[in-house]
Amino acid sequence: MIKRLCIIGVGLIGGSLARALKATGACGEVVGYGRNPEALQRALELGVIDRAESDIAAAARGADVIVLGVPVGAMEAVLGELKPHLEPQTILTDVGSTKGSVVEAAKRVFGTLPPRFVPGHPIAGTEQSGVEASFAELYRQRRVILTPDAATDPEALETIRLMWQQTGAEVIEMPVAHHDEVLAATSHLPHLLAFTLVDTLARLEDHDDIFRFAAGGFRDFTRIASSNPQMWHDICLNNRDALLKMLQRFSTELGTLARAIEGGDSEAILATFQRAKSARDAYCEKNC
Amino acid sequence: MIKRLCIIGVGLIGGSLARALKATGACGEVVGYGRNPEALQRALELGVIDRAESDIAAAARGADVIVLGVPVGAMEAVLGELKPHLEPQTILTDVGSTKGSVVEAAKRVFGTLPPRFVPGHPIAGTEQSGVEASFAELYRQRRVILTPDAATDPEALETIRLMWQQTGAEVIEMPVAHHDEVLAATSHLPHLLAFTLVDTLARLEDHDDIFRFAAGGFRDFTRIASSNPQMWHDICLNNRDALLKMLQRFSTELGTLARAIEGGDSEAILATFQRAKSARDAYCEKNC
Repeated sequence: MIKRLCIIGVGLIGGSLARALKATGACGEVVGYGRNPEALQRALELGVIDRAESDIAAAARGADVIVLGVPVGAMEAVLGELKPHLEPQTILTDVGSTKGSVVEAAKRVFGTLPPRFVPGHPIAGTEQSGVEASFAELYRQRRVILTPDAATDPEALETIRLMWQQTGAEVIEMPVAHHDEVLAATSHLPHLLAFTLVDTLARLEDHDDIFRFAAGGFRDFTRIASSNPQMWHDICLNNRDALLKMLQRFSTELGTLARAIEGGDSEAILATFQRAKSARDAYCEKNC
Repeated sequence: MIKRLCIIGVGLIGGSLARALKATGACGEVVGYGRNPEALQRALELGVIDRAESDIAAAARGADVIVLGVPVGAMEAVLGELKPHLEPQTILTDVGSTKGSVVEAAKRVFGTLPPRFVPGHPIAGTEQSGVEASFAELYRQRRVILTPDAATDPEALETIRLMWQQTGAEVIEMPVAHHDEVLAATSHLPHLLAFTLVDTLARLEDHDDIFRFAAGGFRDFTRIASSNPQMWHDICLNNRDALLKMLQRFSTELGTLARAIEGGDSEAILATFQRAKSARDAYCEKNC
């Protein structure tokens, strides 16, 4: 039971966490803080938070757990603002899509990753954003990755693990670098490709006609291109190395396939498509 | 009313057409022909066809309309087999995803595009294939593109237009080259990217772990990578020029974006993502 939960940045992710914990009675008061007063007011009206604070010191006061739900590019600034107001009992966690950059930001602010800061990332979301899009079931049967280090306080880790488990999620621990590589491959690169494809098409002369004839495959493939540009800008810059490395691998393979198509190399084209279909079908058996 | 409809290749597309026309009483007998006797037997058992023929001459006999539902790579061979058995009243159409290559195949077989051959392409489908996956509603509110030429028989064109309208589809005419460019952009390139992404990930050392942490965005983005490899091999080779041209544009834009990420050019990254989100949201308002 978290008696007082403070959420910094009450959007889709933070809002859904608050809703899920309230629904199971796993937390007492939920305090919200954010830079947008209207969004905070909306969160209050929706019952996602119990109290809205426009002052970060008031928001942090007496909190058992503070969840940082801001875009990863804003983490360092928010940690800096929070630092003077953190109380000894308070456990800190975040929901950022990149973990290396958040740990680095914490080190710049605190000199080291504080033992009671448990970096985290729920692998869940939709292309929507904002508290209006939040819902209590977002984390059910999803996975949450925590990336503690050797100095992390075991009690803090256990509290954050339990918090996520109570939303219906499976909690997994892994090293920071591995998290960033895995997410570059399965999330950051696909978003980059979807944004790029839609932009490429939007810049064609006859783009209206082109979108008119797009079918269901296109709709699903490009869903993630409706995601929040600022958030994804932050992610790209905050997981730059792993993302560019994965993009390089992808581009090399795309170039190889282009040459196979140009040269009419049926065997190579079929082999690629068959490997992809097998892998995707196997993935889907467990996850679709 | 089509008294006798012959479908060459009774899979998802041909099977769904037969189901839709039967459901509205828009056709009489449906005759199926295909190379796989078991699939044909299954189509018969499912009531998708009324008669299965293992001989193409018997299948074509007395047909008012023959629909070619085979992969585009098989069109020329099938047209060659059909040629001696075509009767004067018979109207021919196809459902191939590429139109330039089908028209070229027809010209090689007949010397010219026959006036009673109306090239067509229903912009519909799923990642499934085979007659078991067919359903009568597949074409409802979807678009069907026809690419007749100046010599196309108006009565044949009208028959095929009415046939598709009776499945609930909107029928549009456009030039062959324009069809192939539009489809390269909205369908063929996305499939290529999805196949390539999944294959790139499947070839990573820790691919099991990587797929384990893929979320909903990945699932939707890669749905089309579960599509039929042979069919997509055929499409890539049969729309090679338009596809490679579009791929080149995409790769150039992807390279530009990679350099922006490498150089931390926030403005360029945000501009790309914002243009893409606007275009995708506008598309989705009409099509999601």
